[in-house]
Amino acid sequence: MKPIRIGIAGIGNVGEEVAYQLINGFRVQNDLFPIELRGVSAKSKDKKRKVDLSAVPFFDDAVSMTASDDIDVIVELIGGDSGVAYDVCFSALNNKKALITANKALIAKSGKELAHLAELNDLFFSFEASVAGGIPILKLIREGLVVNKITKVTGILNGTANYILSEMELTNKTFDEVLTIAQEKGYAEADPAFDVDGIDAAHKTLILSALAYGKMPDIKSLSIKGIRNITINDIKNCNDLGYKIKLLGNSLLLDNEDGNKDLFCSVEPWLIPHNYGLANVSGVTNAVQIESSLAGPVMITGAGAGGEPTASAVLADIIDFANQAKSYPFGRKSVDIEDNFKSIGYRDNLKFYLRFTVLDKSGVLADLTSIFKNYDLSIESFIQKLNPSDKTADLIIVTHEANKLVLDKALNSIENIEGIIKEPVCLSIYL
Amino acid sequence: MKPIRIGIAGIGNVGEEVAYQLINGFRVQNDLFPIELRGVSAKSKDKKRKVDLSAVPFFDDAVSMTASDDIDVIVELIGGDSGVAYDVCFSALNNKKALITANKALIAKSGKELAHLAELNDLFFSFEASVAGGIPILKLIREGLVVNKITKVTGILNGTANYILSEMELTNKTFDEVLTIAQEKGYAEADPAFDVDGIDAAHKTLILSALAYGKMPDIKSLSIKGIRNITINDIKNCNDLGYKIKLLGNSLLLDNEDGNKDLFCSVEPWLIPHNYGLANVSGVTNAVQIESSLAGPVMITGAGAGGEPTASAVLADIIDFANQAKSYPFGRKSVDIEDNFKSIGYRDNLKFYLRFTVLDKSGVLADLTSIFKNYDLSIESFIQKLNPSDKTADLIIVTHEANKLVLDKALNSIENIEGIIKEPVCLSIYL
Repeated sequence: MKPIRIGIAGIGNVGEEVAYQLINGFRVQNDLFPIELRGVSAKSKDKKRKVDLSAVPFFDDAVSMTASDDIDVIVELIGGDSGVAYDVCFSALNNKKALITANKALIAKSGKELAHLAELNDLFFSFEASVAGGIPILKLIREGLVVNKITKVTGILNGTANYILSEMELTNKTFDEVLTIAQEKGYAEADPAFDVDGIDAAHKTLILSALAYGKMPDIKSLSIKGIRNITINDIKNCNDLGYKIKLLGNSLLLDNEDGNKDLFCSVEPWLIPHNYGLANVSGVTNAVQIESSLAGPVMITGAGAGGEPTASAVLADIIDFANQAKSYPFGRKSVDIEDNFKSIGYRDNLKFYLRFTVLDKSGVLADLTSIFKNYDLSIESFIQKLNPSDKTADLIIVTHEANKLVLDKALNSIENIEGIIKEPVCLSIYL
Repeated sequence: MKPIRIGIAGIGNVGEEVAYQLINGFRVQNDLFPIELRGVSAKSKDKKRKVDLSAVPFFDDAVSMTASDDIDVIVELIGGDSGVAYDVCFSALNNKKALITANKALIAKSGKELAHLAELNDLFFSFEASVAGGIPILKLIREGLVVNKITKVTGILNGTANYILSEMELTNKTFDEVLTIAQEKGYAEADPAFDVDGIDAAHKTLILSALAYGKMPDIKSLSIKGIRNITINDIKNCNDLGYKIKLLGNSLLLDNEDGNKDLFCSVEPWLIPHNYGLANVSGVTNAVQIESSLAGPVMITGAGAGGEPTASAVLADIIDFANQAKSYPFGRKSVDIEDNFKSIGYRDNLKFYLRFTVLDKSGVLADLTSIFKNYDLSIESFIQKLNPSDKTADLIIVTHEANKLVLDKALNSIENIEGIIKEPVCLSIYL
């Protein structure tokens, strides 16, 4: 039987594990799919790795590897939505190679184009590892729930952010302290912006939207908020109120007045009731929850990142290629993916958690509540907590259901009150 | 494009929904897969149904339908491990039709034989709907986690049993009272034995073991215990101790002294710590948790039964057939499935929850604890609760880690103590 010949571009954590598994063999019977590693490309040829790659042809230029006659499948594990990774992926398909990638940024930006190119050339193209690492969520939506109309996809999609929020609660340390620990443990990058500011989760949310609805809005139109302004006190207050704070990627279809459906798409921290499944997903674990027409709600949790889980997804794609799987990578023809449109960031009516840090002096509360009254916003609960160290107080307000646009106007006015000393924190409450 | 022609044997809840979806169309683009319903067989031809089947050829004899030249795929939804369902499935494959079934009892008993027959004839054969309804768990193990070594599969696999336990806790009603309500709501059969005595969960556990390990022990060797003897007080006591009671199908591989692996396989109620994911799966929801070598722990929850979720799984199998999916149904050749062997029911060392109902008179506790002492069993916590209505008391004991075989001997002795008035209840505690 003709072997399936693999070339890996990028030998980091994930690439090393994929190479290791390919060379050492795994559960799938080798007599079914002889799979051979026939090329690697990496920054350093001679770096010490857990697997000996000296017998594997090494390409200094990853793009040139895509032209090798001895390779059937290019596995792109370089990352980034431009540069070498971009060139490798397009070049692979142009050179009539199957393409497997874990590159969420590239798929979020150019996935439709790549899918189109793969269709034109009748090539296998898959990116299971790009969302939620070891959780086979793309296959689940694309194949397992294939006949369902999906109306909502919500996920804890960034393990770093979830780890930081969990550790802040567990250890009573500040965001900055926990971030430093996460960086030491290898859970966070030296530049943590992608993870803690929600960009990484936004890429994954876009990919999930494309799979679920065939809709991939412009990332610039997404409402993306990270977790940098969340304090230990916020976490404690929310706990007392019966909620956990989780950074969620959220994407849902709602009927609009014209009888069509609008896509609401955002990444932001939410308050989730303690008894909800998502509230109990801690640490670096990822989770995705789907509302579907026939199967109903489905939720899956697992490892969102790391060499082994991500390699598991990459290798599953390789086996799918070997099995001649014929699904479209986004579950539909690329022409049926709507992109370059604006998504809407907020559902109109939600409850909100607000935290105002104020000088501990009289009058501030009266000013604040009078603005609430002017905007006809009503308050469900209110807590005032003194910060004795610096003579400030936190005012915690949970609103009744409110329109976000109205609330935003009120918050703008409130920011101008004398005595409000930090930008207010406003978190949506998950229904 | 040549349409895919379906024949459905058995038009109950699930068959009706599958027929409805096939006739009304669903998310998958019709231009890709023209799928047509070309035959149905049911007990009653003229029963009023949510979909008009009058234009579909009706077969009085389901087995004869499998010989129709106008059908490519037989969907068997009759149920039962023998009789018509058995004949339909074997006859379908012998007549060179693809076979899709939701029949867990038949797959647990004859799945290997059917898989072998499908291989011989190069036919598609799948049974996603046989385990956990709308949750695509078989595809997840077979394809999503394909390169992983799996070491443990644990599931809440019977929605009826889980509903009854949840409702007992919620409403403070007895097992019998909740069972009656469940029967009225259609969540439980008139004869509930399959569900509440663990047989249904055992079938599903066997199928999961076959997918996960290629091992399908004799069902007669399984330790199968149901939930009939669990009282509201047990549920409350466990809650106080920090646990929920859940009926679990459990299947794990452990190294034995010979350097091989033994399969431990059982269905029984377990005490699960409150903060574990499985503890928070309530009502008719199903859940499956998998320990895997690369992807790590993965857990998926969703609807375990019902017409729509089960139809979702059946239809996904149809689309897989249309996509010419080439996986083996059990993830390996049928010859590689080990069957007809004995599984081991218990891990040696676990903690246990014990409840003894005793006459409220002196001496019983002394007799009981002296037997514990004789068997060198040590007690982690002890609660005595009076049942004032009938002058009995419940003695609740949580053991330290103990060997189940030793514990069973002790329980046998304890049953003979004068004053012990019911068979002791012994539940394992999930680690």
